[in-house]
Amino acid sequence: MKTQVAIIGSGPSGLMLSQLLNRAGIDTVILERSSREHVLSRIRAGILEWGTVNLLCEAGVSERLDAEGIPHDGTIISDGDLMVHIDFRELTGKRVMVYGQTEVTRDLFEAQDKMGTTIIHQVSDVEIHDLDAAQARVDFTTVEGERKSLTADWVAGCDGFHGVSRKTIPAEKRREFERVYPFGWLGILAHTAPVNDELIYANSEHGFALASMRSETLVRHYLQVPLTDKPEDWSDARFWAEFKRRIPAEAAARVVEAASIEKSIAPLRSFVSEPLRWGRLFLVGDAAHIVPPTGAKGLNLAASDVHYLYNALVEAIKNGSNKGVDDYSARALNRIWKAMRFSWQMTTMLHRFDDEDSFAAQMRKSTLRHLSESETARKDLAENYVGLPY
Amino acid sequence: MKTQVAIIGSGPSGLMLSQLLNRAGIDTVILERSSREHVLSRIRAGILEWGTVNLLCEAGVSERLDAEGIPHDGTIISDGDLMVHIDFRELTGKRVMVYGQTEVTRDLFEAQDKMGTTIIHQVSDVEIHDLDAAQARVDFTTVEGERKSLTADWVAGCDGFHGVSRKTIPAEKRREFERVYPFGWLGILAHTAPVNDELIYANSEHGFALASMRSETLVRHYLQVPLTDKPEDWSDARFWAEFKRRIPAEAAARVVEAASIEKSIAPLRSFVSEPLRWGRLFLVGDAAHIVPPTGAKGLNLAASDVHYLYNALVEAIKNGSNKGVDDYSARALNRIWKAMRFSWQMTTMLHRFDDEDSFAAQMRKSTLRHLSESETARKDLAENYVGLPY
Repeated sequence: MKTQVAIIGSGPSGLMLSQLLNRAGIDTVILERSSREHVLSRIRAGILEWGTVNLLCEAGVSERLDAEGIPHDGTIISDGDLMVHIDFRELTGKRVMVYGQTEVTRDLFEAQDKMGTTIIHQVSDVEIHDLDAAQARVDFTTVEGERKSLTADWVAGCDGFHGVSRKTIPAEKRREFERVYPFGWLGILAHTAPVNDELIYANSEHGFALASMRSETLVRHYLQVPLTDKPEDWSDARFWAEFKRRIPAEAAARVVEAASIEKSIAPLRSFVSEPLRWGRLFLVGDAAHIVPPTGAKGLNLAASDVHYLYNALVEAIKNGSNKGVDDYSARALNRIWKAMRFSWQMTTMLHRFDDEDSFAAQMRKSTLRHLSESETARKDLAENYVGLPY
Repeated sequence: MKTQVAIIGSGPSGLMLSQLLNRAGIDTVILERSSREHVLSRIRAGILEWGTVNLLCEAGVSERLDAEGIPHDGTIISDGDLMVHIDFRELTGKRVMVYGQTEVTRDLFEAQDKMGTTIIHQVSDVEIHDLDAAQARVDFTTVEGERKSLTADWVAGCDGFHGVSRKTIPAEKRREFERVYPFGWLGILAHTAPVNDELIYANSEHGFALASMRSETLVRHYLQVPLTDKPEDWSDARFWAEFKRRIPAEAAARVVEAASIEKSIAPLRSFVSEPLRWGRLFLVGDAAHIVPPTGAKGLNLAASDVHYLYNALVEAIKNGSNKGVDDYSARALNRIWKAMRFSWQMTTMLHRFDDEDSFAAQMRKSTLRHLSESETARKDLAENYVGLPY
């Protein structure tokens, strides 16, 4: 088998990159270790920066997003009953879009199917070779047990934190930066009305909560919990009681409890691996970097990587210039570190840390008070939340 | 002895309060445990917010300040050789004044002498009594060994972190918040030219440095050092070599080394004790709160306490209204916590912490990069640096 760009992973970054390249007349093959059903069963992020919306539009997959996405002009950051409104529109002229990552992935699969792109599911033992040769080679085993080879000009590693792509770069050539936070997020999905028109990021003396949504009738709520907790420790009743205790009283009064249809606990991590390019291989999205979910940067950062890499590959393949390809790592990392900072700051500002002193709790309160009193501080948060320019 | 307001401590806050009250026709007596020579030998802060300058003007002690103070329209925050200019004038329309705390104290002593205020030096065993009675009583022993009593309507505790005033409030009625930072500042004073027109707050891989000044020919420079270091561990040669390594190369090239005339190491601490009022007693400045010096808020925060308390006491004594007196603690604390947050953030952004991981260092770099690229972030810093409104 032979293609111009081999893409490892059919999450949103792999699919988005493939779709954009295909529309530019560049051939791709996608290798995915899971089934499509599994990929589409994962509940992930739900807030798109406008830059991400525009990229999906450029990829020709914005029809359902335009119809079903819910634009949000702001968000609430709260501390106890103090609610600070961050007015994105007024402060930055921009907004964000509520639309689930799972839906983005579904739209992209559909578009790729129409495009006739080869997506090979349930491959295993992927190995990436010859990254310094004239052509790279990706070996893999099909679900039928057949060992195959894919030859490509370039390889895009879109296979997430646990994927093989990053590990293909020799360990001694990688610089890794990591922070593991001492708590997790318990998330539930439930068919009920949102408690508020906009998201509420809630600091409270009992820990963090996020009141979020996927649509007018489907909510996604989160609680900060100890990493030792299991989803089965949290009955729906216990979840709703704790959730109402952490969000502002006026929002808690609007909670309509419903049975959860999904419940899971995810750890919080900040992680960056440098560089993003190794010969003919590029790392994209979670394969190279992870942000904690506070501030909704994960999917959006994958989208900006895709933006840079798509343009670089078009330049290389269509125009024969390697400039974009050579600059990809530095350009993508520049934006990645800004989002790392923002996500870390949001996480630190809103969560209780087990071993913290009373001064740390006061600093959180003071930071939120500062937000409530300073338009400049709100603007700084808003500019980062809606997404810095590419 | 009898007075309207007994003031414990003749540092800048005690003297400023006394001077303002005297000019409003209110009688004060100041009790001070040290000699005047000792008070005037202490090298302290050197940056005045414009609100502090205005308060000194209101106190009638701005003549020398106007003539000798050096207005600064901005400051530099650096990371290695990256220099970020924070333009106070452009971002906030305000500026700050370089004028040493020692000079402020000297001017205030002179003004108080002219006013004929009773300042009793070298008192010991100060005890504050009857704070819930019609009149408070302050007992003390004079330098001659005589035990005396001072009766007063109100008592202002301006006696610093180690003073008796705060401890007069029963421990179980105080809420204290504290953060001790795991490093100190080694400061030197030397007769030589400043390395830059404006201060440079320098982050570097070797730790923090501050290039500061008292006048065009007198510099005050600092280095972050381990708390276990002693001033005698730092020869002048070692100091200058390390200082040049930490500040940006273009500033290091302008360093003209000179013998130090003072060298000392101070620990860094964030501390707040609530409330600031206990019956007839008020806490002012360092008696109730300490900030780390990063961001120059210590003296300026004492000045804002004095502003609130001076107005409250005039209202109580002249107009018979206790409203300002009743609100003093809440109003002063509101501004104090904002400055605590700013000083903590500046300290965290600019210092190496011994046990930090590589991610923490990246977050410092990213924060400084964010400052360099975001006018909003620079404006937020500038608004806090020049001083939030009273």
